[in-house]
Amino acid sequence: MERGLFITFEGIDNCGKSVMSRRLAEELRGMGYDVILTRQPGGTALGQQLRQVLLHPDADGLDERAEALVFAADRAYHVKKLVRPALEQGIIVICDRYGDSLVAYQGGGRGMDKAFLRRLNAFATDDLVPDLTYYLAIDHATSAARQEGGCDFIESESAAFFQRVIDTFEALAAEQPQRFCRIDATQPMESVYAQVKAAALERLAAR
Amino acid sequence: MERGLFITFEGIDNCGKSVMSRRLAEELRGMGYDVILTRQPGGTALGQQLRQVLLHPDADGLDERAEALVFAADRAYHVKKLVRPALEQGIIVICDRYGDSLVAYQGGGRGMDKAFLRRLNAFATDDLVPDLTYYLAIDHATSAARQEGGCDFIESESAAFFQRVIDTFEALAAEQPQRFCRIDATQPMESVYAQVKAAALERLAAR
Repeated sequence: MERGLFITFEGIDNCGKSVMSRRLAEELRGMGYDVILTRQPGGTALGQQLRQVLLHPDADGLDERAEALVFAADRAYHVKKLVRPALEQGIIVICDRYGDSLVAYQGGGRGMDKAFLRRLNAFATDDLVPDLTYYLAIDHATSAARQEGGCDFIESESAAFFQRVIDTFEALAAEQPQRFCRIDATQPMESVYAQVKAAALERLAAR
Repeated sequence: MERGLFITFEGIDNCGKSVMSRRLAEELRGMGYDVILTRQPGGTALGQQLRQVLLHPDADGLDERAEALVFAADRAYHVKKLVRPALEQGIIVICDRYGDSLVAYQGGGRGMDKAFLRRLNAFATDDLVPDLTYYLAIDHATSAARQEGGCDFIESESAAFFQRVIDTFEALAAEQPQRFCRIDATQPMESVYAQVKAAALERLAAR
């Protein structure tokens, strides 16, 4: 049986990952493909428990190293129990955030050792690399303008933090052009989605 | 202010870590030292949450990579929030299990990459290495004979697994004789404790 395609969506908050990943999943299902749409952190029951730890740490805050390791633990479990078995059954797996987010947020944003974080991702996922990663590029001002209501623990970070995250996503996309599809996500939604769809169909045709 | 002493206890289950660490803590307190006795995993409120994840994973079991990363997350948080601040206040910290357990159980026992696990410990603890580590050496038969009642997720592993754990502890102790105090813990308890006490007093005197 042909292995499924592993597709991830990356980018800062409000870049459109959720909407675009849902539309792509629906489109591919409409074409007859089996598709699982999932997320990190929190794509499994254990991931939900770990996500609660991330969102509601002790009163004195979660240490940034512990935070990175909890993200990695969630990723390990999610890949082992859900992503890899689905791919082996020929299912297309679309995941909202994956290892690049760890490098961008914890490495770029928080200034932790990016080389170690890459190795941490490789260990956690047993070297499972996506076939296709969308980077939906928006600037921090656009993200902030699109934000409704409250902020969570990561959305409350500073503009300088987000610029470092963006710079890291850009560097990753530039470094791995075969894997990444970078899309200017400040464009109208229909234009962004047309590019998302085109890239996925191209990868599926190329198999 | 003089930095506190960081003392860890290592060894397989039923080697006497709990009893020996408690007695040492009481002895040093009786001598007028400030002492914190703690444990990994589970030495903080967040650690207790992570420990619950380890003890009660999904019905289909915790992935071994996720397990290693949850241990590391617990360690990171515990060091940042409890161990390091205490040491900086001049307090003696005695910890039941630390990074050597990750290398011995996940590396030796489960066969994961020991070099990576050491790097994971260094990342998690921001390079905090104990001043003194007791390795209380017993064989698996002694551990099993001392075991009362139920087994937890790690105690239910096979004899071959424990032999690999033991071999790894022995190798770590042999490799770092300055840090390790290896004690034959099949000896009578009073004899073991006399050696524990002597090593601690020697380190305190040498400061």
